[in-house]
Amino acid sequence: MQDGPGINVGILGATGTVGQRFITLLADHPWFVIHALGASPKSAGKPYAEAVAWKQPTPIPPSVADMIIYECQAEHFKDCRIVFSGLDADAAGDIEAAFRSAELAVFSNSKNYRRDPHVPLIVPLVNPAHMSMIPQQRALHDPQLKKGFILTNANCSTTGLVIPLAALEKTFGPIECVLITTMQAISGAGYPGVPSLDIMDNIVPYISGEEEKMEWETLKILGGITEGDDGLKTFDMHARHPLRVSASCNRVPVIDGHTECVSVRFARRPPPSPQQVREALAAFTPDALAMGCPSAPRHAIIVHEQPDRPQPRLDRYFQNGSGVSVGRVRQCQVLDIKFVVLSNNVSIGAATSSIINAEIAVLKGVVGS
Amino acid sequence: MQDGPGINVGILGATGTVGQRFITLLADHPWFVIHALGASPKSAGKPYAEAVAWKQPTPIPPSVADMIIYECQAEHFKDCRIVFSGLDADAAGDIEAAFRSAELAVFSNSKNYRRDPHVPLIVPLVNPAHMSMIPQQRALHDPQLKKGFILTNANCSTTGLVIPLAALEKTFGPIECVLITTMQAISGAGYPGVPSLDIMDNIVPYISGEEEKMEWETLKILGGITEGDDGLKTFDMHARHPLRVSASCNRVPVIDGHTECVSVRFARRPPPSPQQVREALAAFTPDALAMGCPSAPRHAIIVHEQPDRPQPRLDRYFQNGSGVSVGRVRQCQVLDIKFVVLSNNVSIGAATSSIINAEIAVLKGVVGS
Amino acid sequence: MQDGPGINVGILGATGTVGQRFITLLADHPWFVIHALGASPKSAGKPYAEAVAWKQPTPIPPSVADMIIYECQAEHFKDCRIVFSGLDADAAGDIEAAFRSAELAVFSNSKNYRRDPHVPLIVPLVNPAHMSMIPQQRALHDPQLKKGFILTNANCSTTGLVIPLAALEKTFGPIECVLITTMQAISGAGYPGVPSLDIMDNIVPYISGEEEKMEWETLKILGGITEGDDGLKTFDMHARHPLRVSASCNRVPVIDGHTECVSVRFARRPPPSPQQVREALAAFTPDALAMGCPSAPRHAIIVHEQPDRPQPRLDRYFQNGSGVSVGRVRQCQVLDIKFVVLSNNVSIGAATSSIINAEIAVLKGVVGS
Amino acid sequence: MQDGPGINVGILGATGTVGQRFITLLADHPWFVIHALGASPKSAGKPYAEAVAWKQPTPIPPSVADMIIYECQAEHFKDCRIVFSGLDADAAGDIEAAFRSAELAVFSNSKNYRRDPHVPLIVPLVNPAHMSMIPQQRALHDPQLKKGFILTNANCSTTGLVIPLAALEKTFGPIECVLITTMQAISGAGYPGVPSLDIMDNIVPYISGEEEKMEWETLKILGGITEGDDGLKTFDMHARHPLRVSASCNRVPVIDGHTECVSVRFARRPPPSPQQVREALAAFTPDALAMGCPSAPRHAIIVHEQPDRPQPRLDRYFQNGSGVSVGRVRQCQVLDIKFVVLSNNVSIGAATSSIINAEIAVLKGVVGS
Repeated sequence: MQDGPGINVGILGATGTVGQRFITLLADHPWFVIHALGASPKSAGKPYAEAVAWKQPTPIPPSVADMIIYECQAEHFKDCRIVFSGLDADAAGDIEAAFRSAELAVFSNSKNYRRDPHVPLIVPLVNPAHMSMIPQQRALHDPQLKKGFILTNANCSTTGLVIPLAALEKTFGPIECVLITTMQAISGAGYPGVPSLDIMDNIVPYISGEEEKMEWETLKILGGITEGDDGLKTFDMHARHPLRVSASCNRVPVIDGHTECVSVRFARRPPPSPQQVREALAAFTPDALAMGCPSAPRHAIIVHEQPDRPQPRLDRYFQNGSGVSVGRVRQCQVLDIKFVVLSNNVSIGAATSSIINAEIAVLKGVVGS
Repeated sequence: MQDGPGINVGILGATGTVGQRFITLLADHPWFVIHALGASPKSAGKPYAEAVAWKQPTPIPPSVADMIIYECQAEHFKDCRIVFSGLDADAAGDIEAAFRSAELAVFSNSKNYRRDPHVPLIVPLVNPAHMSMIPQQRALHDPQLKKGFILTNANCSTTGLVIPLAALEKTFGPIECVLITTMQAISGAGYPGVPSLDIMDNIVPYISGEEEKMEWETLKILGGITEGDDGLKTFDMHARHPLRVSASCNRVPVIDGHTECVSVRFARRPPPSPQQVREALAAFTPDALAMGCPSAPRHAIIVHEQPDRPQPRLDRYFQNGSGVSVGRVRQCQVLDIKFVVLSNNVSIGAATSSIINAEIAVLKGVVGS
Repeated sequence: MQDGPGINVGILGATGTVGQRFITLLADHPWFVIHALGASPKSAGKPYAEAVAWKQPTPIPPSVADMIIYECQAEHFKDCRIVFSGLDADAAGDIEAAFRSAELAVFSNSKNYRRDPHVPLIVPLVNPAHMSMIPQQRALHDPQLKKGFILTNANCSTTGLVIPLAALEKTFGPIECVLITTMQAISGAGYPGVPSLDIMDNIVPYISGEEEKMEWETLKILGGITEGDDGLKTFDMHARHPLRVSASCNRVPVIDGHTECVSVRFARRPPPSPQQVREALAAFTPDALAMGCPSAPRHAIIVHEQPDRPQPRLDRYFQNGSGVSVGRVRQCQVLDIKFVVLSNNVSIGAATSSIINAEIAVLKGVVGS
Repeated sequence: MQDGPGINVGILGATGTVGQRFITLLADHPWFVIHALGASPKSAGKPYAEAVAWKQPTPIPPSVADMIIYECQAEHFKDCRIVFSGLDADAAGDIEAAFRSAELAVFSNSKNYRRDPHVPLIVPLVNPAHMSMIPQQRALHDPQLKKGFILTNANCSTTGLVIPLAALEKTFGPIECVLITTMQAISGAGYPGVPSLDIMDNIVPYISGEEEKMEWETLKILGGITEGDDGLKTFDMHARHPLRVSASCNRVPVIDGHTECVSVRFARRPPPSPQQVREALAAFTPDALAMGCPSAPRHAIIVHEQPDRPQPRLDRYFQNGSGVSVGRVRQCQVLDIKFVVLSNNVSIGAATSSIINAEIAVLKGVVGS
């Protein structure tokens, strides 16, 4: 890939949980070179290894350990063609906007701009076509932008859901309703995150804002883009075939890996059989792989035949967490089909999605050179 | 209660997990006196404290510690008016039948006779009326019985479900469909049960036979009894208002307490509001309390208002685990209403239900004197 | 006990982990009546049930739920004969001093005054005799006090250690050295305390300041009080028989209950046998029980014979956590004897010790009427 | 290495926990080729993937999945130059002896022959010199052997201990006594192993036979070999400088990685300082690395400077678990120096040690060609 080697990237929120995962994944990336790290003022000026409370199972990459952290100001990142953001929501709003205004390409994990009508919300194995909204985002910015934009990826629990749903809609047409119960890992709450006294020998049947995110983001991601008479594009929120989504979100004592029990009803009658669903899932091949994204999983969806899989501890690290695992595909007595999906919330559910999004953007020429 | 004090009871499977719970609960029971303990041949002949691997957080009751264990043969239990069975399914079939034939009243936790057309499957806070099947069970036995019968209680995960469903049907009429995802404690699998290597930092999205039990037992319990032209009674399996039940069962790293995310659709249109549902649940008063059963919970259903409750570690021991906790009552985008229910699987989900069933049977005169 | 019923007590830090435990234990206390609650300014003015994030397995006692919380100022507690403090160390220093100056009797769980040369550090089953230092504490205060004083109890891990050590020294004379490795529960760190990401599937072999506390506090508690020629009393830090203490402290994924592996070497040669040690531990009867303290455990030390006990989950709640459990008493190849001790860190290791200390102080007349 | 590629190896107990680890590690080994798998009669005849309950976080290596399992009879393994045994102790005794008699080189993880006076007990980073006992083992066998022998590696908790002790003795001379408290992972007990009901939210302060193993094996491994006047060699059990070892072994809720708190007293006075100890540990370079063993760790001992390390979850996978981590090196108030050591019990504590032992044996020509 001629465009590849030597693309400088920056990481915002570099000392946080998602930031650490970005660093682990990018240290050996074939194209991207970690060029600048940003964090809070109290970390700025320090070498990374000194500022961070490193919690990954592999050591800090030596190439990063001595890098001096910057404050999250665009001037320090002007040599980065891509900026990954793992910022907390309370900081992300202003900083990401400022970076975009400074003509930087921001790939964000934060929730702040996901509902923005001109910001694409992209799960790279599902809807990279939504990058077509970026020209409009630049054009409507004041002042108009040439290179800057914000692109977000989805909430970790949404990501695990929409990949198999996209595979099903591609093969069997529109889904009418989806009912999901999640069992989400503690790493989804960041660090320090969930107090141990709250989760050991326990389930917390509530994650603030999570159900709303799943119910809303799923529509934006699985929906299309429509163009009005005025030439303006709009995310259609799956409006051509209204889709009802009901999510119940639980925190469970698992370190990494979100497990979700999913029931779906198809518009098509009769609905596909469990075996047809298994085949459609296993056959799903996202564009990202065909395009040559180095971080795309070889198998977007692994379909398990054993009755007791997937399990987070056994399956979350397969393909370095870049695909999802589906098992127990069977009939649902209430809707049509039910199954279990497992996704690695810190990989495909967060940093890995951002990185594949950036790889696609490079390949499509969306990121300016 | 004149009939009360001094009713001798026996316990089968006394050294197992459910047996230990029976002993803990019965040691201080106002009516029942532990008179005989039965276990496997390798335990028989030993004092209880020596044969058991005691796992309860309170010590072995002194009155039981020195009791000599019998083999599970009816002759050793002939002075017991009631026999509680915590036997494993592979032993329960023959032994419970033999005890019934010997004119003993058997209250069983095992699954073996739950599907028998003449054996009532009773959750004491829901369908004690099903005891009316017992005369027919005795009459059709060969030879006919005077006092012997088998009465079972439900699977632990079914019990937690049907209590709120019964409250809802009582107030709002028939439910049309129910979709449940369970997160079940390890104690539900007995001892040694779930290997720690399978469940630490993990979810197992499968429990053999559990979903089928929930889907089938719910119909038997919530259904009625119909009488044919020939005078024969039949459990109607909720046939007057067909009910579809879909369960997804998961094992989670929680010691005690099954958490279930439940979505329901009512026949009645428009359906009740979340607030009406909350009120109906809180107001539910089973007959068992009114009848004066000493082990019946004061509050069958506790309705929580805090958004993050119920939680197994915080709520499972309330009322000694004899009621259930419901929280997060809210609208479901796919069915009508969804909520979370927590039940203590070793108390109301097992031994406590058997004991209340026996108390009701005494009060109704079903147990011979 | 004529002095008993109706002694008003206050609780500082009432919303914290130790404060919640105080409330649970005092709600049914035969003598003490919860009269006033103090917490931080942001909780002050609110009803208790609204201000607290209650984490106990039993509900908030109804008598406390509606009490309005005060700021921690002495004027609001002037009708309390006893004030229990569960304050964090950063707040406890000034507040406890101010309460003492206001002639209040403060029983503190904080570390701030444990090393004060006039403040007794008392484990109630071990060294209540150290209350004899209180008159000197009052006399040297400026201005001199009549009723006010501060009395602290020990760090939770120290408490579990010194109870068996006191029993051994009482029977066999001085101990020369002790080597301890602790495995401490997460509740010892308060709430939110230990992040779940730090402790699930993990051991943290370090607790800041804990080893120093154990090594120092043990000497003060097991030592005596000497009187100089000037009549001034001093804690002798076990100086007559120098005692070397080496502690290694670990945090483990256990909710409640500190387990400690202890090896001791006695001054006496030959040392006692394991059987003699077992008997001495089992026979240990602290004064608190004989004096009639209602919260004193019937058995200060339970000696287990099974090889795999004590275990925190099975043994921590025995006697409501007011005693300690010892097991595996056997020879040590390096020192003389080794054993395992388990103590409930939130009961005898914290609130229960304070309460028994207060009971002793009432019975001895140390608390002014 | 000319002798390398293409050495056929067999694995006994291939479906067990240690067997699975052998397969994972050997699938990509540069020299060894998995040629034959042995397991119990009920697995024999089946393809590996069908017979095994695979519990590793990476999938079954494709080259192994379809291999047909044999019974553990030597005739099926006659083309294997090396046989690794992960058999349970109850099967290992007879089978390993039969394999040796059939002139096979057996590298065993079982405890059965560790105390045999002619079987070397080798931790490959510590005492590979003990392979010099093998000729005598063959010579004294009846009938005398040419190629067959048994070589064992140590218990997992012993292995983690003796590596740093060997480093210290090499630099500072004999150690006089060692006191260890272990916190051992559940994977050390195999599968199904520890029931989850026994270990969740709990510590079990006892592992049957473990303390005796640590106390005895340490002497054999750290001791030398002496030759009598009759030319017979004997393991001297560290007799020239008697060494006292006292171990307290605990099971903790950790999946992989044994943590040990160790205190040592040196013969040399004054003892080395903590800083000297840290340097000696970090500088320790076992022969296995210099010899060119492909599985030997680059760093036998990682010395951590942060006060809260090593931790099992963060440090157990470093170097694929082939080295050990030491931290918190500091003075001990009772002995001289104390520290924390972490070792991966399934890697260097089991399969990895066997494999490095075999690599050394190949390089030394101990394994016949």
